Amino acid sequence: MNSPHGVGPTGLWLIGARGSVATTVISGLLALRAGLVEPIGCVTERAPFDVAPLPAWDELVIGGHDIVDTALDKRAEQLSAAGLVPASVLRGIAEGLRVVDSDIRCGYHPTLHTGSQAEAAETLIGDLVSFRERHGLRRVVVVNLASTEPPVPLVAEHQDLAALEQALADPTRTVLPPSSLAAYAALRAGCPYVDFTPSTGITLPALRELADLKGLPYAGRDGKTGETLLRTVLAPMFTARALKVRSWAGTNLLGGGDGATLGDPEFAASKLESKARGLAALLGSDVTAPLHIDNVPDMGDVKTAWDHVSFEGFLGARMTLQFTWTGYDSSLAAPLVLDLARLTSAAHAAGRSGPLGALAFFFKDPLGSDEHRFAEQTRELAHWVDELRVSLTGDADGLPGSATGSANPEAGAQA
Amino acid sequence: MNSPHGVGPTGLWLIGARGSVATTVISGLLALRAGLVEPIGCVTERAPFDVAPLPAWDELVIGGHDIVDTALDKRAEQLSAAGLVPASVLRGIAEGLRVVDSDIRCGYHPTLHTGSQAEAAETLIGDLVSFRERHGLRRVVVVNLASTEPPVPLVAEHQDLAALEQALADPTRTVLPPSSLAAYAALRAGCPYVDFTPSTGITLPALRELADLKGLPYAGRDGKTGETLLRTVLAPMFTARALKVRSWAGTNLLGGGDGATLGDPEFAASKLESKARGLAALLGSDVTAPLHIDNVPDMGDVKTAWDHVSFEGFLGARMTLQFTWTGYDSSLAAPLVLDLARLTSAAHAAGRSGPLGALAFFFKDPLGSDEHRFAEQTRELAHWVDELRVSLTGDADGLPGSATGSANPEAGAQA
Amino acid sequence: MNSPHGVGPTGLWLIGARGSVATTVISGLLALRAGLVEPIGCVTERAPFDVAPLPAWDELVIGGHDIVDTALDKRAEQLSAAGLVPASVLRGIAEGLRVVDSDIRCGYHPTLHTGSQAEAAETLIGDLVSFRERHGLRRVVVVNLASTEPPVPLVAEHQDLAALEQALADPTRTVLPPSSLAAYAALRAGCPYVDFTPSTGITLPALRELADLKGLPYAGRDGKTGETLLRTVLAPMFTARALKVRSWAGTNLLGGGDGATLGDPEFAASKLESKARGLAALLGSDVTAPLHIDNVPDMGDVKTAWDHVSFEGFLGARMTLQFTWTGYDSSLAAPLVLDLARLTSAAHAAGRSGPLGALAFFFKDPLGSDEHRFAEQTRELAHWVDELRVSLTGDADGLPGSATGSANPEAGAQA
Amino acid sequence: MNSPHGVGPTGLWLIGARGSVATTVISGLLALRAGLVEPIGCVTERAPFDVAPLPAWDELVIGGHDIVDTALDKRAEQLSAAGLVPASVLRGIAEGLRVVDSDIRCGYHPTLHTGSQAEAAETLIGDLVSFRERHGLRRVVVVNLASTEPPVPLVAEHQDLAALEQALADPTRTVLPPSSLAAYAALRAGCPYVDFTPSTGITLPALRELADLKGLPYAGRDGKTGETLLRTVLAPMFTARALKVRSWAGTNLLGGGDGATLGDPEFAASKLESKARGLAALLGSDVTAPLHIDNVPDMGDVKTAWDHVSFEGFLGARMTLQFTWTGYDSSLAAPLVLDLARLTSAAHAAGRSGPLGALAFFFKDPLGSDEHRFAEQTRELAHWVDELRVSLTGDADGLPGSATGSANPEAGAQA
Ligand SMILES: NC(=O)c1ccc[n+]([C@@H]2O[C@H](COP(=O)([O-])OP(=O)(O)OC[C@H]3O[C@@H](n4cnc5c(N)ncnc54)[C@H](O)[C@@H]3O)[C@@H](O)[C@H]2O)c1
Ligand SMILES: NC(=O)c1ccc[n+]([C@@H]2O[C@H](COP(=O)([O-])OP(=O)(O)OC[C@H]3O[C@@H](n4cnc5c(N)ncnc54)[C@H](O)[C@@H]3O)[C@@H](O)[C@H]2O)c1
Ligand SMILES: NC(=O)c1ccc[n+]([C@@H]2O[C@H](COP(=O)([O-])OP(=O)(O)OC[C@H]3O[C@@H](n4cnc5c(N)ncnc54)[C@H](O)[C@@H]3O)[C@@H](O)[C@H]2O)c1
Ligand SMILES: NC(=O)c1ccc[n+]([C@@H]2O[C@H](COP(=O)([O-])OP(=O)(O)OC[C@H]3O[C@@H](n4cnc5c(N)ncnc54)[C@H](O)[C@@H]3O)[C@@H](O)[C@H]2O)c1
Ligand code: NA
Ligand code: NA
Repeated sequence: MNSPHGVGPTGLWLIGARGSVATTVISGLLALRAGLVEPIGCVTERAPFDVAPLPAWDELVIGGHDIVDTALDKRAEQLSAAGLVPASVLRGIAEGLRVVDSDIRCGYHPTLHTGSQAEAAETLIGDLVSFRERHGLRRVVVVNLASTEPPVPLVAEHQDLAALEQALADPTRTVLPPSSLAAYAALRAGCPYVDFTPSTGITLPALRELADLKGLPYAGRDGKTGETLLRTVLAPMFTARALKVRSWAGTNLLGGGDGATLGDPEFAASKLESKARGLAALLGSDVTAPLHIDNVPDMGDVKTAWDHVSFEGFLGARMTLQFTWTGYDSSLAAPLVLDLARLTSAAHAAGRSGPLGALAFFFKDPLGSDEHRFAEQTRELAHWVDELRVSLTGDADGLPGSATGSANPEAGAQA
Repeated sequence: MNSPHGVGPTGLWLIGARGSVATTVISGLLALRAGLVEPIGCVTERAPFDVAPLPAWDELVIGGHDIVDTALDKRAEQLSAAGLVPASVLRGIAEGLRVVDSDIRCGYHPTLHTGSQAEAAETLIGDLVSFRERHGLRRVVVVNLASTEPPVPLVAEHQDLAALEQALADPTRTVLPPSSLAAYAALRAGCPYVDFTPSTGITLPALRELADLKGLPYAGRDGKTGETLLRTVLAPMFTARALKVRSWAGTNLLGGGDGATLGDPEFAASKLESKARGLAALLGSDVTAPLHIDNVPDMGDVKTAWDHVSFEGFLGARMTLQFTWTGYDSSLAAPLVLDLARLTSAAHAAGRSGPLGALAFFFKDPLGSDEHRFAEQTRELAHWVDELRVSLTGDADGLPGSATGSANPEAGAQA
Repeated sequence: MNSPHGVGPTGLWLIGARGSVATTVISGLLALRAGLVEPIGCVTERAPFDVAPLPAWDELVIGGHDIVDTALDKRAEQLSAAGLVPASVLRGIAEGLRVVDSDIRCGYHPTLHTGSQAEAAETLIGDLVSFRERHGLRRVVVVNLASTEPPVPLVAEHQDLAALEQALADPTRTVLPPSSLAAYAALRAGCPYVDFTPSTGITLPALRELADLKGLPYAGRDGKTGETLLRTVLAPMFTARALKVRSWAGTNLLGGGDGATLGDPEFAASKLESKARGLAALLGSDVTAPLHIDNVPDMGDVKTAWDHVSFEGFLGARMTLQFTWTGYDSSLAAPLVLDLARLTSAAHAAGRSGPLGALAFFFKDPLGSDEHRFAEQTRELAHWVDELRVSLTGDADGLPGSATGSANPEAGAQA
Repeated sequence: MNSPHGVGPTGLWLIGARGSVATTVISGLLALRAGLVEPIGCVTERAPFDVAPLPAWDELVIGGHDIVDTALDKRAEQLSAAGLVPASVLRGIAEGLRVVDSDIRCGYHPTLHTGSQAEAAETLIGDLVSFRERHGLRRVVVVNLASTEPPVPLVAEHQDLAALEQALADPTRTVLPPSSLAAYAALRAGCPYVDFTPSTGITLPALRELADLKGLPYAGRDGKTGETLLRTVLAPMFTARALKVRSWAGTNLLGGGDGATLGDPEFAASKLESKARGLAALLGSDVTAPLHIDNVPDMGDVKTAWDHVSFEGFLGARMTLQFTWTGYDSSLAAPLVLDLARLTSAAHAAGRSGPLGALAFFFKDPLGSDEHRFAEQTRELAHWVDELRVSLTGDADGLPGSATGSANPEAGAQA
């Protein structure tokens, strides 16, 4: 349980607020507040990550941008039919969904927008600022949950903030992809930014410069919820046991909005790149690693990943490990988004800025960290949360339990 | 590569020296010495476990007990036909196999033996002592690789050394199972003892008392090479991510001598118990966990394990992970036996005694440790090896690499 | 669509009418009648099995026995929460469920019943007869969907009808298991009997004698819906390709009522026997074939089967096939129950009696047939249905499509 | 066992004679002749396909074309190291391999050849004719086992034999891909032609015209040995049970020469097309069916296919079937090549010409047949073999067993 003497009322602004993940985040938060469900999958609710003062469930206020206008309660019903939101929960959150809906604004539409991107940014900033004021929030964490974008070629203006702002002002140019425009607006509005997608977002040097200038923390990118989670858990085992991985093949089948986007090879490129980087970091680059993402509409929000690992052991013996992971993607993602909002909010409260590398635990392609091994990420996160606690409470000793906690991040049996 | 200034010539005495694992250990060591293969799977050959001075490959001398008398080169040929020892390697080690063969003695046969167990123990002790003297060895590590025994009911004499020795002297009683008699003989001969099987072995209080008395280290039990290795890698992931595991079912198919033994439910009981204890320690005891070991003779030395994990996520979503592991059991086990011989030998040289809990990394049911999480075991082992280095070399700073090494036990890409 | 000029109003009497399969049968039939769902999984709705005149959906009237009294609409709600009945369907069939509920009677309770089994049988017969009369039905097909029973040892009275009836009259004896008592009552009431379970049911010689005497058809046993279905599809492939299967291991995980029953080894025995018989019939008896059924309550009505086939090819190469089948058991079973009711009803109308071997297509352990190969069963069923059509309509030529149909039972693409 | 009074000495001319499949064919035939192995995987050795008089193992004489010159015994050693040919067999066939080697000629090299393709064809024809005469063979069956080619765009000359021959004579053109040139040469030399690859081969109308002209039989294409075999076995099950397949995804991992070729998307195109055609023919075209072939060199000759089938059942329940097939591709292919040589030879002896549709049993993309369902193909083949027997022996009644045989193609347990 998180402290009521926490970092105070925090806004959570979702880019892509009507998407599957976002709708699950919103539905889940409402259900948690109403006590309709347990916080399964929320790591900030359990040891050793629960020691810092974090905003409580009813201190989180949600708003966001999207470019479609399907009402949230309709989206939640669709998710319910798909097995993501139990029918009983749906009944209890209908009113709450309508309230959040009234805080969703129209986002930046890449093909419909007219005028300069600077103007577009001003609108986005205005939405953020008025949301913060309207609800009397101490801070607003912006989380990108919009559709994955294709990778963009770097240009000179991406390297330098001044040059970038000049280009933004030019109505004939579209220098930033939507995710980066969203990041720009967030930073300009004084908001920490978290990228849960593999899109370009805040990774451009000019935007990192802006974050430094504003003293804002950020985190990313690409939520680690399935195949990659398992890879970062399993690959270190082979290394620790001195077994030689020769190939690691993967196939991902998914439907839903994300499946449709990633079924297009151009859009999948950024996701495939972020996955491949991780495997190479864990096992070296001489491992054959074919990887596919297939759009299989009938699977809806279920994602199935099959991985086949071929490795060599003593005396050259050839062996294999296969796994099949079948999960509801949005169910896996949503509690992490709530965790990220809480932790980033606390980091902001504690005055942290720059990339939050200790949040690598959550991401396929961690900003500010080269650590891909999940057990190490778990340990680093526990340590960082404990430091945060000290910063925010001034209490260096912690609660009796917490010291043990930080030494033993996965300790003991499940609650 | 391990230091030539190591702990010096070490004997490795295998109980069950003509079995699959033992023959693979012997073949592999000969092949390593002859430079015919790489030390894949030997963790003491790579960072961060390679910092302590350990016996080099050509400082290990092998002997052992068995109750069958098939010649080692015949056994190696059988393993080669089964795909475990490459034909090219076989040719290069034929002579070496015959040499080792001459150091294998007839072990204690539970049903053929006549006389008291004390007499039997004397014979075993005699074999060990004369082996040590014949080869001028500083120490001999005894490793149990014999067929798995059924669990035995504890009796009063198992609790107290004096009472035990009285019972041993009684020719009408058979107070100890073979593995425990072997452990008794090892300790009495001043040898560290490692149990790679789930048999009773050294776990009886009276034998632990003897180990303390003699100031000897020991380790065990039940080598962790497949399904359990994966479980100790994967279960902490669910805990760290606050996902609720509901059931974890497993089926193991195996042939070979081990398959035949474990196909008998009475004998499988000890293996099933050691596996179940591990899962409960990792996930708590309310996880449904049916587990089977099936004897499938046609699979020979290949072991296939299928696990099916059902877990609950955010908003109650039900998801699954399945894996299939297909490995050559003896290939996975053999390098660990070499590692254990080296590390236990160094521990003995450094004056350690009692259960070596830091070797939990190697075992399904670790003696002297409650830690089942593989990443934590890896870290603890690295730390312990570094301490061993300090004890043996007096060098507190270590090699430049070692400090990093111990902080980063699975660091970086594969060699 | 089946002919309105069919065999006329038919009763479908379910033993175990409040179980998962039965509730799915009832819910599904109501939904089909209301046009709320497509008849997916109902083979009598498609070529080549749709040629005979069969009772239409609204000509089937359901009643049954059970020994629990949970209301059907409650059970349907439970199944809906488990993902078996869509929420939208549930709303449309609520009234229908209550109507069927009024035709469910209290069945024979093996441990609570007092008096002779003959008396019990009279009650059951009375229920059947009054159901038939109340609804003006031409015939009533009794289908056993009750919990699986353990196998019973054969006694002399099971071999001979007169002896059996004498024993039934003896209030101190319990000569028949419930499934056989149900079969006895059905036959005595002039009803064809179908056993969808692996219980003893009608297989006793004395009951077969009674069926012959009454000129009644019967069919069974043990609905083929998952692992065994796949085995009877895959095993013939190995035979046809002259590949030598060496082992075929299987593990079944299931929850629900059936899981709880089959989790008990005594009760699972009949299921395991019926599965093993099938594999031996397909591949011979020298195939190693360990088989497990595990009760995993958290899986509810989902059944997961993993099979691992190891086979030998040219030059002795060893290869494997694994499959994982994840299905809703009751969804797979229910449409087959409707098909069986229709087909058995038509067989009765056409004057067939004795075991309906041509229904082997539906069963793990087919009565009246030694054919386990699924493709052959499909062909035989098609042929039989066409004969039935001729019997019932006198039309030897069939519809234009039907000739092709019966020659090509799995013809072309899916509808 | 096949009749010694068969169709007499038959040549088997392999295009790609030094490849993996071809070397396995040759090694296997030599081992069969020497009685070193059983004919596992050879369907013509068992009922019901063994009724026709076919060339005996020692009546088959092998020669072939290749464009590399690695000696056959070297290739066999490589296959032995890869686990395909047992070491014991290798010793017994060394001399035989050298004999076959002396009948392998240099084939048509697409990039090194100079001059017209007509000249190249003359050389190939000369090789075939002199092989036939040198060994006094009644007939020579040419089987294409060369590397898969990319699909070629159809041009006008492919439609008409006269136009084709004019283009062949033009030294500035390369109108035929190598597989089609090989087919052309085979037909011109009076040899039946079998295409075991998905290459263009004999499928061009002009070549079919030539086959008709010469009264020669031919068969193809693309040997069915793994994933597709299973698909043609499993898909009819879903259809027969009225279950609605929604998606069928597949991933194939393979190394070896075939892996390297098919890893190139251009070359894989013909294989992917032939696989996709089959699935659509079985299930209709509205099934989502992503399919991948990945080159994973470390897997050598092992091919692993993972398929994931998602289907809908009663009341819309969503269920899945997954399978993993792990096989030695050349082991699976080689016995089929021997079967095809025997059967095509007998067809030639019996005066059959044109596409042998009854051989669809062997192929992914059967020429002369639209039947993809494996059980139906099995039945058709049995029927055809029986007809062949009648043609060749004049005996309409057959052996006592054969009548049953043809009605029951997969009958009973394995031999
Ligand atoms: N679910 C997971 O496990 C997971 C893991 C890692 C990353 N992600 C990423 O999260 C993102 C969301 O996934 P999802 O399944 O919810 O997808 P989705 O398609 O359901 O939702 C995306 C939403 O973004 C909106 N959108 C698109 N462009 C926008 C813009 N310019 N401004 C504002 N809104 C915009 C869309 O209208 C849509 O509502 C994807 O990028 C996905 O790759 C998801
Ligand atoms: N291979 C693995 O991955 C692994 C992992 C954990 C534990 N183990 C354990 O290692 C042991 C050996 O496995 P294996 O596959 O080599 O089995 P195996 O059957 O091939 O060999 C066992 C050997 O022990 C000998 N033996 C039996 N009783 C003896 C006695 N009283 N004294 C001396 N020798 C005796 C047998 O004659 C045989 O040669 C088993 O207990 C197994 O459970 C193996
Ligand atoms: N679902 C499948 O795919 C499948 C396949 C083959 C066979 N079966 C068999 O079908 C049967 C039903 O399965 P289920 O999942 O519905 O089980 P379930 O436990 O949900 O239902 C069984 C019902 O039978 C009732 N019952 C028990 N004893 C009875 C008696 N003496 N008289 C009347 N009713 C009695 C119980 O009260 C319960 O309502 C089982 O025997 C199962 O093995 C099911
Ligand atoms: N193994 C199977 O299960 C299987 C199934 C279906 C089809 N096939 C097909 O069989 C073929 C052979 O497979 P493989 O694994 O033996 O491949 P491989 O690469 O080992 O062998 C191919 C051989 O063809 C030779 N070759 C190439 N071009 C040639 C030419 N113009 N003339 C003569 N020889 C030529 C190559 O030098 C090589 O020796 C492939 O096309 C493959 O797709 C194999
Ligand atoms: Na990084
Ligand atoms: Na065709």
